[in-house]
Amino acid sequence: MTDSAAREPLGFSVHTAPAGLADDGRDDFTVLISTTPAVVSAVFTRSRFVGPSVTLSREAVADRTARGVVVLARNANVATGAEGEANAREVRASVARAVGLAEDELLIASTGVIGRQYPMAALRDHIKTLSPVLPEGGFDRAARAIMTTDTRPKVARARVGDAVITGIAKGVGMLEPDMATLLTFFATDARLSPEDQDRVFRRVMDRTFNAVSIDTDTSTSDTAALFANGLAGPVDLAEFEEKLHEVALRLVKDIAGDGEGAGKLIEVRVTGARDDTQAKRVGKAVVNSPLVKTAVHGGDPNWGRVAMAIGKCSDDTDIDQDRVVIRFGDVAVYPPGRDGAQDEDEVRAAVAEQMRGSEVVIGIDLGIAAGAFTVYGCDLTEGYVRINADYST
Amino acid sequence: MTDSAAREPLGFSVHTAPAGLADDGRDDFTVLISTTPAVVSAVFTRSRFVGPSVTLSREAVADRTARGVVVLARNANVATGAEGEANAREVRASVARAVGLAEDELLIASTGVIGRQYPMAALRDHIKTLSPVLPEGGFDRAARAIMTTDTRPKVARARVGDAVITGIAKGVGMLEPDMATLLTFFATDARLSPEDQDRVFRRVMDRTFNAVSIDTDTSTSDTAALFANGLAGPVDLAEFEEKLHEVALRLVKDIAGDGEGAGKLIEVRVTGARDDTQAKRVGKAVVNSPLVKTAVHGGDPNWGRVAMAIGKCSDDTDIDQDRVVIRFGDVAVYPPGRDGAQDEDEVRAAVAEQMRGSEVVIGIDLGIAAGAFTVYGCDLTEGYVRINADYST
Repeated sequence: MTDSAAREPLGFSVHTAPAGLADDGRDDFTVLISTTPAVVSAVFTRSRFVGPSVTLSREAVADRTARGVVVLARNANVATGAEGEANAREVRASVARAVGLAEDELLIASTGVIGRQYPMAALRDHIKTLSPVLPEGGFDRAARAIMTTDTRPKVARARVGDAVITGIAKGVGMLEPDMATLLTFFATDARLSPEDQDRVFRRVMDRTFNAVSIDTDTSTSDTAALFANGLAGPVDLAEFEEKLHEVALRLVKDIAGDGEGAGKLIEVRVTGARDDTQAKRVGKAVVNSPLVKTAVHGGDPNWGRVAMAIGKCSDDTDIDQDRVVIRFGDVAVYPPGRDGAQDEDEVRAAVAEQMRGSEVVIGIDLGIAAGAFTVYGCDLTEGYVRINADYST
Repeated sequence: MTDSAAREPLGFSVHTAPAGLADDGRDDFTVLISTTPAVVSAVFTRSRFVGPSVTLSREAVADRTARGVVVLARNANVATGAEGEANAREVRASVARAVGLAEDELLIASTGVIGRQYPMAALRDHIKTLSPVLPEGGFDRAARAIMTTDTRPKVARARVGDAVITGIAKGVGMLEPDMATLLTFFATDARLSPEDQDRVFRRVMDRTFNAVSIDTDTSTSDTAALFANGLAGPVDLAEFEEKLHEVALRLVKDIAGDGEGAGKLIEVRVTGARDDTQAKRVGKAVVNSPLVKTAVHGGDPNWGRVAMAIGKCSDDTDIDQDRVVIRFGDVAVYPPGRDGAQDEDEVRAAVAEQMRGSEVVIGIDLGIAAGAFTVYGCDLTEGYVRINADYST
């Protein structure tokens, strides 16, 4: 289990403040730094429309070492042309100068409205006030300062031997990560080799952040990074992977449950696939189906929509409806008459019961081979439409 | 232009009636037949979860001749096992017997809730009352009888030389056709060779019904068919294709404008792509983006979401954001400063103005080569969520 009583990782400092990106006085500017050099692993969006934040951060992690990240919330700085790129470079360079680092020791991440320039005058004024020594700890503040439409901050912690891992994340819309979620950062004082850290980090991200989807829209700004400064010494690698997975999965479930307008977490467990890739594809087809999502929202036991969504994987010609089994929780709904010949109405009543909880678990066995993958999403509500119909105005 | 004053095609008869599939007394059962043998062209869903209707219809069109179709609305007869298959065979066979045809001369199409058996007692009672000679004409009635959540029937007509084409369609949800839309039928008295007819039909379907999307959910029941009985004699093939395209496009725009809960038609015109396939992929990414759809619903000039949606085509590594141009109507929104250096707020005001109409046209030029494709969709509203949150109950 994730230990919420764990201390913060040694040697990390956090600055947060309102810097003029938002107009509501909330913290919107975050600097997270390791006081000593850290090994960094990172994955980024594969979008063809990335902003300069992602481009600069990709360059910064190429040598696998970094000292931290600057995060700007409420403005994505994407599709802003040469001016946007110059602004991103200036912000990162001036923060680096203020805290005594080289600029390529810092990642930069930015999230919010696309197509708007940073309010540079306000940012310059704020960065001038930065102290060279930032306060220790403060991950809870950071988790709050990186939010956009999130309704709550997302933080998870775990102990690993003498070390700890703290993870923070934001992201509740434009969320079908394609390498990472919008923004998530992990800090640990465990000591790991760069190669081990990278392998473990990518494996964990694939089964957690790359398995969550809110609305099939992939952000231009997705960034996930793990900073490990080694101050607490070496740890058991398998245990580290297990704990990192726990922390990441907790953040993922928190994100899906806080999806824009969402009321329910949907978990789709696919088994019996040709391989894990097929299992993931089928799971995504189901968890992303607007008709499955609206049925879960309404508590409508319309399980046929799960069959429909599986059927959408039309290039998977080895999917044979005569071998597929579909369950809601422990209720077998397809094929008809399985688990004793309940009639249609009894099955529907049992599914409606499963849908009453805040987590709906859909099980699908394809009956082909041993591939398996679990994906996470949320229901689709009037609230999602309302939030997104006037987001930029 | 489509000529709504055109007569009905010669030699087609239509029966419609309430047959117990719905519980609101509306017509839910349709038999459409040509009084003489007709050449048939048809395309079907590629879903891996098709029902027996699609399977039986595929067999019926294999020899390229048919006499008509039986359509059952309000029940998809999908995921219903061996019982559902026997029921579909029985319905088709008994209708064929009643009107004096062989069963494999009839297609069968079924649309509605998945996972429920037909009400066979009611259907048997109704089919017993069928007259061997059905009334001539009646396409307007048929268009109404095949509806499910449609708010209005969809019919379009055109003249071609001495012949006419009449098309009907239904479908407003679970609509990302993958070979055809839910259900659409075309009847003509033009005389065409089976090969010409098939080539023209598939080309027109690809640019019309395969270019529309309401919600990315592909129906298990998609069926499109053109019946040509030749009674009005030969026509010019190029003119026939042009008119069939007009009729189909009018149905498609009608479908998109009547998308579940929809208030606005969205048309995305992609040009400058590597090829037409890439143009279609990019168009679909944009027209299907929930964030683009909600912004159009709210009239929020959040054009950056179009950039995001283009960026989702991450395997298209030849898409370069420095060569992309994005327009809303005649307003250039990206790259920044194009068409005279309007400032951000002026551009947003102009986009908001474009969004006020009932049709929003988004233009995207990728600047790669000459590939082009136009796709059609609709906005995403609270109404869509409401309709689908309790559809089966």
